[in-house]
Amino acid sequence: MSQASAVHAKAVELGKHVVRMTTAAGSGHPSSGLALAHIIIELMYRQMRYEPTDPWNPGNDRLVLSVGHSVPIVYAAYADLGGTVVTPAGERRALRIDDLTTLRELNSPLDGHPNPAEGFPFFDAATGSLGQGLSVGAGLALAARLDGIDKRIFVIIGDGESREGQVWEAMDFIVDHRLTKVCAVFSCNGEGQAGKVSPQQSADSLAAKAAAFNWEVLRVDGHDPVELASAVGKAGLTDRPLAIIARTVKGWGVDSMRNSNFHGKPVPSAELDKCCAELDATGKRLGAKANGQWKPPSPARTSLRGPDRSIAIAAFEQALERAGLSNALKAKKLATRAAYGVALAALGEADSRIVALDGDVSNSTFSERFAKAYPDRFFECKIGEQNMISAAAGLAAGGKIPFASSFGKFIARAVDQIDMAVISRANIKIVGSHCGVSLGADGPSQMAVSDVAYFRSLTRVDTGNGTPGCRVFQPSDAISAYRLTELAANLRGLCYLRTHRPDAPFLYVTDERFEPGGCKQLRRGEHLTLVSCGFMLHTVLQAATRLADQGVRCNVFDAYTLPLNAAPILTGARAAGGAILTVEDNYLGGLHAELAEAAGAVADIRVVGMTPTRIPKSAKTADEVFKYVGVGVEDIVARARTLAAR
Amino acid sequence: MSQASAVHAKAVELGKHVVRMTTAAGSGHPSSGLALAHIIIELMYRQMRYEPTDPWNPGNDRLVLSVGHSVPIVYAAYADLGGTVVTPAGERRALRIDDLTTLRELNSPLDGHPNPAEGFPFFDAATGSLGQGLSVGAGLALAARLDGIDKRIFVIIGDGESREGQVWEAMDFIVDHRLTKVCAVFSCNGEGQAGKVSPQQSADSLAAKAAAFNWEVLRVDGHDPVELASAVGKAGLTDRPLAIIARTVKGWGVDSMRNSNFHGKPVPSAELDKCCAELDATGKRLGAKANGQWKPPSPARTSLRGPDRSIAIAAFEQALERAGLSNALKAKKLATRAAYGVALAALGEADSRIVALDGDVSNSTFSERFAKAYPDRFFECKIGEQNMISAAAGLAAGGKIPFASSFGKFIARAVDQIDMAVISRANIKIVGSHCGVSLGADGPSQMAVSDVAYFRSLTRVDTGNGTPGCRVFQPSDAISAYRLTELAANLRGLCYLRTHRPDAPFLYVTDERFEPGGCKQLRRGEHLTLVSCGFMLHTVLQAATRLADQGVRCNVFDAYTLPLNAAPILTGARAAGGAILTVEDNYLGGLHAELAEAAGAVADIRVVGMTPTRIPKSAKTADEVFKYVGVGVEDIVARARTLAAR
Repeated sequence: MSQASAVHAKAVELGKHVVRMTTAAGSGHPSSGLALAHIIIELMYRQMRYEPTDPWNPGNDRLVLSVGHSVPIVYAAYADLGGTVVTPAGERRALRIDDLTTLRELNSPLDGHPNPAEGFPFFDAATGSLGQGLSVGAGLALAARLDGIDKRIFVIIGDGESREGQVWEAMDFIVDHRLTKVCAVFSCNGEGQAGKVSPQQSADSLAAKAAAFNWEVLRVDGHDPVELASAVGKAGLTDRPLAIIARTVKGWGVDSMRNSNFHGKPVPSAELDKCCAELDATGKRLGAKANGQWKPPSPARTSLRGPDRSIAIAAFEQALERAGLSNALKAKKLATRAAYGVALAALGEADSRIVALDGDVSNSTFSERFAKAYPDRFFECKIGEQNMISAAAGLAAGGKIPFASSFGKFIARAVDQIDMAVISRANIKIVGSHCGVSLGADGPSQMAVSDVAYFRSLTRVDTGNGTPGCRVFQPSDAISAYRLTELAANLRGLCYLRTHRPDAPFLYVTDERFEPGGCKQLRRGEHLTLVSCGFMLHTVLQAATRLADQGVRCNVFDAYTLPLNAAPILTGARAAGGAILTVEDNYLGGLHAELAEAAGAVADIRVVGMTPTRIPKSAKTADEVFKYVGVGVEDIVARARTLAAR
Repeated sequence: MSQASAVHAKAVELGKHVVRMTTAAGSGHPSSGLALAHIIIELMYRQMRYEPTDPWNPGNDRLVLSVGHSVPIVYAAYADLGGTVVTPAGERRALRIDDLTTLRELNSPLDGHPNPAEGFPFFDAATGSLGQGLSVGAGLALAARLDGIDKRIFVIIGDGESREGQVWEAMDFIVDHRLTKVCAVFSCNGEGQAGKVSPQQSADSLAAKAAAFNWEVLRVDGHDPVELASAVGKAGLTDRPLAIIARTVKGWGVDSMRNSNFHGKPVPSAELDKCCAELDATGKRLGAKANGQWKPPSPARTSLRGPDRSIAIAAFEQALERAGLSNALKAKKLATRAAYGVALAALGEADSRIVALDGDVSNSTFSERFAKAYPDRFFECKIGEQNMISAAAGLAAGGKIPFASSFGKFIARAVDQIDMAVISRANIKIVGSHCGVSLGADGPSQMAVSDVAYFRSLTRVDTGNGTPGCRVFQPSDAISAYRLTELAANLRGLCYLRTHRPDAPFLYVTDERFEPGGCKQLRRGEHLTLVSCGFMLHTVLQAATRLADQGVRCNVFDAYTLPLNAAPILTGARAAGGAILTVEDNYLGGLHAELAEAAGAVADIRVVGMTPTRIPKSAKTADEVFKYVGVGVEDIVARARTLAAR
């Protein structure tokens, strides 16, 4: 039992750090950290094969702390092991014990919740919005398997957090893809924030559920080093993925914390000594005895990743011909979603880092073209979009360039997961198909109409390296869809590509070039400037033609991306009567906002916007729906006439 | 077996309608409808106690079709029963068989997916974005229990759709709240859209999972009338909630559909007769024999709901004193989230329709004040926000006025559910606490920063009755928080109330009045107009004071709501040098967009906006984070000086 004595001694030592650092911070969750003391020691000192001084080593076993608010215990262990951090000033150095009391400070790499982007590369993903870690772990495991790296992914999940449905999407996904290198550790302390954890998330219930989800289940005392060592030692070796259900104690070792609901509160300074004495007394009772310092086992050797490189795909015509779509070339007409599928397959051929995920709609989003060509790099997520996005973030952390697609409407299922991916600076590409009201017959439950506002909100925040939080691409034809997909693959960070259901005529020459922030002028006129994008642009072009017949000549711009460099449009508008009319198939918060904000800085140009004015319903055609929600071609003509300079 | 013969005959009859109507529509999911033929007949003709001609009767048993794309079979049955619809022209009348071929037309009440707001009041919620129906059913059951109505709620869930994590959040929630009047029917046909349903969602797996989630489980052949009758007859009578796992056949009765993946495709017109003949042959093989017409059993008698009435709450001082917060009255300082809790409890006292839901953070959002006072009307959802929002929509459909709260960041978990609630015109109130970057120490994983952009996107779409898709309220002090909570309760439709963590000084007299579209002018000046809201407003007021010290006198407006009537601000700005500076603690797409769009129509006023320019991180205070992301008081002063007219 000398090993156990040493683990208890380390638990007391780290526990004291946890208590002191949260008190110094004036906030945080010491009781949640203490609950994980033994699990973290077993993982970070004894079982995980990794180099604390090289957290970027692709051979490292990984830890995803899904229950993010417990992070102080990880910080304490990492400081004790001299793990490498990156300070906000950019210095790579060993984390020191005396850094711990800088927890949650502006100039500290120790953020309030796990955050690889703020200096803690031991983690692969920001966590703290609960229930997402297991999906990230699945993505990491997929990436490792593709790279032939024999490493294990440990994910620690709280009992309360396992109420999140996403946890169960991930449980399914991991079984579907036989990711037996993922080990899920459920920490069951029975205490939530506002009250007790539901009996539905008791250790008994979780064990029964995990078994019903076809996982191997082991139950342990989460503070018993021997039981933990035995269970964790099986990780990666079982036929089915392994779930360890660990009974833990919130505020382990500190009776005064255990006797009340002590969630998310630091210990008052005055009680710090008493609290540490209680931890010492607990250690003594358990026969704790320090035993030098452990060094984690070394990782498997792997060839390191190559540098970033750009990816070029075939010429558009060639790709379409290969895809058996030469008819579309002749007809000069193809849906943007279909062109996306062609581009994705071409990317897959050009670079093995490209992977794709879809939520049981690959025959609608056309990611099936990739799936058929590169089945080992395509991951069917079934109808679980939250897991899909977080798994994509995990794949990105593992060096892949994931494209995750579904109907744009169902991408909304994963907004919180996208937020977390952005905080993690994850290099993911999201593709929403069937966007806007042009979907027609299926009705509003299938139409993405708030997506542009949401993704645009991320476009002007810097992620810390000059890259915006998101780039939105709204192709209007197959050629731009093809090239914008390629562009997305070559840009770092989140890109959102918005495709549409209906066929659309080609607007561009097949070697047209597109760029971040860019736009295209399709028509020139001196009376008014019309701006649109995506499928809606074709309706605007029809309106422009009618207007021209009536003597109103309009500039027409395709503003295919956000953030947008509005200068060419503003310049065009100044020379054409000083008014802009934007037309969108989505609700408020897209192009109109972008141009009104840009123009508002000078206020020499009027900007008026048309977006759907009422909730859509089913109708047979896109045009009928456009008319129903007030953005039909006649509506556009009428509004344009009121604005035109004549 | 004569009963079975009659059911098979009806299945053939309705099946033919399903095939014909989707062919007429040119789109839709006939094979999915056929899979449910016998289940729908058992429910809608034989077991559900309801009045087809009075779908609003509160005593009616309810059906939630979570697997929304199967809806044509429900339309067929409802037409056969002469159920009441509301045409787009507003006429209440019986649905007729010859209406069925208007499926998915603009002027038809038969939308592509279930949609109570577009003329089909038999349903309580729009479905079609999958996995949400069971939560809605839970909300309906809670409302019925509160009203003492003995009715059953049937929810039909597809096997593929049960991959959605929300289904399992709902399974937990229903057990926690002992909602044994909810009966979940899982239709297991094994076929998804892009491929087979995962073995994780097989009938065997679902049965094991439901049992592990502590449900009563019955397994049946979903096309065997006798087995179905026996199982459905137990609904509402079991000690634990009942899950019926029904094996079904996609494209039942039509061999040509069964032999290929026939998802979401209508039968070509030329094959319609052959298809109907196959259905007839199937009926013959099963001994189908028509047996007159059934009439569903009558609902329990209940007192009908009263008319809408307005709700008034106590004076602010009185409410605070009762809440034991007289210290706050003296200090003239309280967090908006704390004032929300006081208001919610006051609403609970004033009207029994007020109910509240929370996701294990009621001691942070302060909904705990309501929970303690009205425990029977408070529903703890634990850490499952998707289920929370859809359950709120169900409660609203049951006549309640639900307030659902969590951290604003975690509300993002339920964006798709909110979208569906808006499509349903659900009268729900969502409260996000700890919003914006002022949260400070906890870091970005806990901060709502895209919430305003998302909710604002809904503010200018009409829901069909003059009400916007959403109203956003951003109180800056406790008094406005108190009154805006009251206002939200009195407005129909979705309202989003955004509260903040820190204490904030009072800005208003205690009987100040607030209104939809309104704003408040707090300072007057002739050099510049500053606009903000929420906690950020206090920083802007500090900046205005510093600017005044420097001789720059500013208007300051509190734009506490969206959609905003911008006229008073524009008028104020015109008289003060013609420039507006907005300052927000959220990302792009809120106030700046609102005012830039409003001002852009005339373009006589410059509008410049400040929002966080980089992803936030932890810091000890709100001010430190404001500074870090570029919206600190000095940043505001500096920017204002460049804009001021002097």
